[in-house]
Amino acid sequence: MKKLVLAACALLLQGLVHAADGRDVLMQVSTIDALMNGLYDGELSIGELKRHGDFGIGTFDALDGEMVVLDGQCYQVRGDGSVHVVDDARTTPFATVTFFDEDQTAAFSDVDLAQLQQTLDARLPSENLFYAIRIEGVFKKVRTRSVPAQTKPYRPLVEVARTQPEFEFENVRGVMVGFRAPPFVKGVNVPGYHLHFLTEDRKAGGHVLEAAIGEVTVIVDHTPDFYMQLPRSRAFQEVDLTKDREAELYEVEK
Amino acid sequence: MKKLVLAACALLLQGLVHAADGRDVLMQVSTIDALMNGLYDGELSIGELKRHGDFGIGTFDALDGEMVVLDGQCYQVRGDGSVHVVDDARTTPFATVTFFDEDQTAAFSDVDLAQLQQTLDARLPSENLFYAIRIEGVFKKVRTRSVPAQTKPYRPLVEVARTQPEFEFENVRGVMVGFRAPPFVKGVNVPGYHLHFLTEDRKAGGHVLEAAIGEVTVIVDHTPDFYMQLPRSRAFQEVDLTKDREAELYEVEK
Repeated sequence: MKKLVLAACALLLQGLVHAADGRDVLMQVSTIDALMNGLYDGELSIGELKRHGDFGIGTFDALDGEMVVLDGQCYQVRGDGSVHVVDDARTTPFATVTFFDEDQTAAFSDVDLAQLQQTLDARLPSENLFYAIRIEGVFKKVRTRSVPAQTKPYRPLVEVARTQPEFEFENVRGVMVGFRAPPFVKGVNVPGYHLHFLTEDRKAGGHVLEAAIGEVTVIVDHTPDFYMQLPRSRAFQEVDLTKDREAELYEVEK
Repeated sequence: MKKLVLAACALLLQGLVHAADGRDVLMQVSTIDALMNGLYDGELSIGELKRHGDFGIGTFDALDGEMVVLDGQCYQVRGDGSVHVVDDARTTPFATVTFFDEDQTAAFSDVDLAQLQQTLDARLPSENLFYAIRIEGVFKKVRTRSVPAQTKPYRPLVEVARTQPEFEFENVRGVMVGFRAPPFVKGVNVPGYHLHFLTEDRKAGGHVLEAAIGEVTVIVDHTPDFYMQLPRSRAFQEVDLTKDREAELYEVEK
């Protein structure tokens, strides 16, 4: 019993320390609707982004592939499916990161990803908070997509997404990296789950479209604070962000 | 010419310094929709709030009046119309603050507040960014409201607002304090303008419903970064934030 109380105190203290040192902040660059509108020019360097987190997802200047930030390393899954470690000088038009700390852990086997998310939903404190989600282990199947670098004039994301290359993996070890965001950030980020994938050998991955779980561990980091850097570009100043793009987002993300 | 260039350089440097030292961050506690839902329990102390800004608006624990933070001082306009300087130990369920720096200035005379806002809109860089707005001078008329402290069980804000006390001032010197927020923060903050008023003698004020300008100076602070602390309370975890409350917000704010 004493051990349990001590462990609970340690977790509580850890939580307080995280809150105080800014580790429980979900940080994002730009807004999802700006990206939907074709604002693909890099806004923040990867070096700067990494000052706000060691874990996260996003994309790169010119929409050049899917971003995975994992254990402080920034990976790019290119349109051809290949994975590259990214230099700090590269830039991102849209990304979300945090410093990852374990707040909740659960094991799952033999479910599809949608079922896992439903079950996880029931165990999270609330759908009104932000969570960073790490799902690691064996996947029976993962279907992903990536995106090749775009050239100007940029087309809206919903058009680009219609021709994006897809990849399928079977019985693969790897890790999903991403977030669960609350409903009230519609237009700002992706409400619900948004996950990217990397194989264990860091040679393939992409934006997760669907998956069947073999045996995985899910680690959740509660990040109740939110910090958004809006772009300083003229393009952002001039884009029309009044339109509801929920239907388009659904088409792009699913 | 040399003077002009030097002045421009000084402003630019100032801007860079503000961005680097976190002064150009709009910080808010909780979300407007949580407040609309009757979550009036204080979440953050005024002392903590002031660490994030010297300028802003909000309300107090139990919805006990309208908050104005001005030049680092926190004022409460109570439901009876009286104004009080607030102790750092008091708490707020919803507030928005920043460190105020002058980025743009304009003079206005003999217009109503809606016209002033329209003209200002055309001069701001974009409707996609956050701005802190300070309007100071002589007002021909200001109509405000405040709100008396509520008791549990709390009613939704739209119900409370229907019976709130209103105040009217004529030919009064004073200052309006508030923000202009972009459309994509619907549900999170108040899109468009949101202003509170304090008379020059700091003895009256409230949430601004309408006003006719005599002669004022408007100072705008561009705050492109946004930081939101979500409540840690069980009430926030359990409240339904999926409903679109735009119509209710319009009824409450106007």
